[in-house]
Amino acid sequence: MTQATTDTFPRIVIAMGDPAGISPELLARLLDRRERLDRAAVAIIGDRRALDAGEKAAGVKVDVRTVPAGDIGRAAPGQPVFIDLGHLDPATIHAKEASAEGGAFAIRNFKEALLLAKQQQVDGIMFTPFNKLALKKAGNPYPDEIRWAVDILGWKGECSEYNRLDDLWNARVTSHEPLREVAGLLTRERVVRAIEATAATLQAAGIARPRIAVAGLNPHAGEGGLFGNEEIDIISPAVADAQGRQYAVEGPFPADTVWLKARRGDYDVVLTMYHDQGQIALKLMGFERGVTILGGMPVPITTPAHGTAYDIAGQGIADPSATIKAFETLLSLTSLRMARSAA
Amino acid sequence: MTQATTDTFPRIVIAMGDPAGISPELLARLLDRRERLDRAAVAIIGDRRALDAGEKAAGVKVDVRTVPAGDIGRAAPGQPVFIDLGHLDPATIHAKEASAEGGAFAIRNFKEALLLAKQQQVDGIMFTPFNKLALKKAGNPYPDEIRWAVDILGWKGECSEYNRLDDLWNARVTSHEPLREVAGLLTRERVVRAIEATAATLQAAGIARPRIAVAGLNPHAGEGGLFGNEEIDIISPAVADAQGRQYAVEGPFPADTVWLKARRGDYDVVLTMYHDQGQIALKLMGFERGVTILGGMPVPITTPAHGTAYDIAGQGIADPSATIKAFETLLSLTSLRMARSAA
Repeated sequence: MTQATTDTFPRIVIAMGDPAGISPELLARLLDRRERLDRAAVAIIGDRRALDAGEKAAGVKVDVRTVPAGDIGRAAPGQPVFIDLGHLDPATIHAKEASAEGGAFAIRNFKEALLLAKQQQVDGIMFTPFNKLALKKAGNPYPDEIRWAVDILGWKGECSEYNRLDDLWNARVTSHEPLREVAGLLTRERVVRAIEATAATLQAAGIARPRIAVAGLNPHAGEGGLFGNEEIDIISPAVADAQGRQYAVEGPFPADTVWLKARRGDYDVVLTMYHDQGQIALKLMGFERGVTILGGMPVPITTPAHGTAYDIAGQGIADPSATIKAFETLLSLTSLRMARSAA
Repeated sequence: MTQATTDTFPRIVIAMGDPAGISPELLARLLDRRERLDRAAVAIIGDRRALDAGEKAAGVKVDVRTVPAGDIGRAAPGQPVFIDLGHLDPATIHAKEASAEGGAFAIRNFKEALLLAKQQQVDGIMFTPFNKLALKKAGNPYPDEIRWAVDILGWKGECSEYNRLDDLWNARVTSHEPLREVAGLLTRERVVRAIEATAATLQAAGIARPRIAVAGLNPHAGEGGLFGNEEIDIISPAVADAQGRQYAVEGPFPADTVWLKARRGDYDVVLTMYHDQGQIALKLMGFERGVTILGGMPVPITTPAHGTAYDIAGQGIADPSATIKAFETLLSLTSLRMARSAA
């Protein structure tokens, strides 16, 4: 596998998340270790005063040059830049509280990052945790980050949320949909496309031949048609189609036992039919340590899976490991992509 | 709480399960510790030769008197009896294999146990693990043990499967139903009845005021109607109804985080809307150590949650702890019931 060279370093933008929680502290801790920034040109979008507050909470001083938005091109490996929108005085924000101001701050940063991606000025986006209630107070109309991103990007292709916990991934055929509608949304073609997209995303993350386990929809994966026919009519044929195209895919497996197989290392990724099939398992396995990846768009987007943790804001005890993993996952997704387009 | 006296000891029948797996060994290990049998009149139904094989595998000798089926009344605390149907020569059974003969053996034993319950000769039933494929080969037409039991008992009331893992329980509003049908099966009344039945079952097991967490149906419990309305229209009103009747019940909670709350001890039981909402979580938490309880019928029925473990049959390494917990759970369910009817 080709390493990204300095000629093909990825350009990454980090959008600052909610200012009232641990997001600023996490960002300060991520930037504090400069060797992390050696393999990409990193730009941060937000307000320098909010990052100052994060440095204070973390007890670190980060070395990042502030530049005007038009000068993002001055970011280089080892030389991150800060695009200071000057739109948030942290003194106006109540720590540990969801506010419209905090939500508006996060919305603006993410939007600017998406616009940079749309203008092909960056290859990947990361954001620190948002607070859903704050976003709502600020009038954010999107039910999830995928619909938000594709709207601003003007992207019509299929995309999907992935979750990664250590070396185990989760992909979904359907996501934020009413459970009532899930069965009706499944088709053989859609499941095949989800298998292919899953394989492509894991390959982009450096797993040459991802081993994919596909979950069934019904209890006991339908028990031979006793509790539903989607496994027989839709999912099994889709798995067979994908096997015919040489994907390393197996299933459908009962949703309650597939996670035991995956946890012990039999598979790299579980493709679930709906949101909670994966989220129940991941949360129990410690998904606060995990990473969320939005894939299938012109640029990959990553974020730590945990929330804003208002309760421990400003105490200097936030654990940056999921943030670091989100950055590293984005680095590998963008580096490999760059290396491939260069090849 | 009144203790069952010798006058009110529960009468328990144990139906032998699949003979080709670890069921006979588990039974031998359960019966080997006689003090366990001091608080109930225990009868075992099966074939003595199959129990012999279990004793051999376990390396124990159990002291149980064989009596004709009509003499089940001779069982007394500390004096278990064996009802030998003489219908299975273990020499004809291939260990580690699902066979029609093994399935027929388990079916007959369970049926006899249910008939004893129907004749009010026993107060509770336990069975050692069945093998689904063997049952099917033997022509068993029932999709699950509940529908099997209510059919033979001629029971028209509502009943439900419960799962218990250590001190944490799981109850379900719907069970072995196609996922497509779950949303349509939920009504406010049905959720209220499930809450009441759950409270009654846990009270019967000795938890005076069970703390019940109710799961939502949709991702993020619907996120305020964004991803489905069942939480707003059905589940929240049902929880409010039950709170009005003084149940210690809260929710609906998102299904992926409710288990984190329950695992740390905030609740005694999670009431899930469908099968996999609970099973994914329980299996990951180690449900092979757990117990399955069928409640709501004239007699409670319990069984260890794990399967027949064909792979380790006959090796003397089967872990009887889930079987012992299934017996103890049945003992408390039946003892309290006896004590209450005596009071």
